[in-house]
Amino acid sequence: MEQKKVPLVVIRRLPRYYRYLSDLNDMGIERISSQVLSKKLGFTASQVRQDLNFFGGFGQQGYGYNVKSLRNEISKILGLDKHYKVVVIGAGNLGHAILNYPGFAKRGFKFVGIFDNNPDLIGKKAGNLTVMNIDDLEEFCEKDHPDIGALTIPKESTANMAKKLEAFGFKGLWNFSHVEITSSLPVETVHLTDSLMTLAYKISSSAVDD
Amino acid sequence: MEQKKVPLVVIRRLPRYYRYLSDLNDMGIERISSQVLSKKLGFTASQVRQDLNFFGGFGQQGYGYNVKSLRNEISKILGLDKHYKVVVIGAGNLGHAILNYPGFAKRGFKFVGIFDNNPDLIGKKAGNLTVMNIDDLEEFCEKDHPDIGALTIPKESTANMAKKLEAFGFKGLWNFSHVEITSSLPVETVHLTDSLMTLAYKISSSAVDD
Repeated sequence: MEQKKVPLVVIRRLPRYYRYLSDLNDMGIERISSQVLSKKLGFTASQVRQDLNFFGGFGQQGYGYNVKSLRNEISKILGLDKHYKVVVIGAGNLGHAILNYPGFAKRGFKFVGIFDNNPDLIGKKAGNLTVMNIDDLEEFCEKDHPDIGALTIPKESTANMAKKLEAFGFKGLWNFSHVEITSSLPVETVHLTDSLMTLAYKISSSAVDD
Repeated sequence: MEQKKVPLVVIRRLPRYYRYLSDLNDMGIERISSQVLSKKLGFTASQVRQDLNFFGGFGQQGYGYNVKSLRNEISKILGLDKHYKVVVIGAGNLGHAILNYPGFAKRGFKFVGIFDNNPDLIGKKAGNLTVMNIDDLEEFCEKDHPDIGALTIPKESTANMAKKLEAFGFKGLWNFSHVEITSSLPVETVHLTDSLMTLAYKISSSAVDD
């Protein structure tokens, strides 16, 4: 399929389409109109049509969208038809939380390792895995070729670790550290503080409306 | 200050400005041009000027922006000049991770309680706090009037708990459950799966570029 250059803001909405369409598909629902889709997702119907037009437009006048094929197209666009091996760097609470967070496996993400430098944590169980010594990461990568490194380590160590992961052949970084990463690899940063600040804004601006 | 209706997409960029300006301010830097600001943040200079114009425009031709006053204005816009009491619902790994995540306190967020329904967790230490029984939350709220509830409980329990928090007088919900919340309160949802799917897209689309 020919793809136009898709703005990241549209890409960021696709997981939401994907999740909802997956739920519909699981319920055996075969088609959906852009009106219903938009209402459920909180977008406007014209935004839904615009978003999906980026990918060739799968809707048909008077029919709407076929749930399964739209879901599968979005899955392909997001690269979810592939499988990704994920390694967690940092076996603290956040590392454990990510490892145990439900729903990653069925999206094609498989956690294959968790590493730390803390001797008290190395050897401990973490989900189905055992925490490994960070010094063994390079060797692990040579054998297992993980794709994604989830960084849940202190921000002081993050830049240096990001460089190592790049050298070890990782394809992307999922960053939970409270710092921006400069890397030639694709990086997706989860800024928890920014999210909480956005909530503060919503609270204080809705308070002003009263 | 008169505020125009600010699109949420602009609001979502403000924490990033705020963090960077705070760093500059800590380093004693007094002014910055929109060019430098945009370069550091990865936005275009015209986007920076547009974003900041929403709030009356604090830049001066040939001078740029005063770091401290711009930071303080953004702080006010985000509602960070206020203080927020946060309660964590769910004392699993994610609840602990949030409680221990650095940098919330200096943004005005104070964690005042963590609750669970699991007898094995109630009474255990969590950061400076002790895990309390969820049955005692209502009484706690009557005394302490927390503002924000961070939901780190299974998605099956989330809708019901969100209703309770609303009834108990919370002002906003920070949702980590893998489900959308319908509430009359402001909600900010951290979709970890969506973030990982976005990374998958970046990886697969950059792979196509090779």
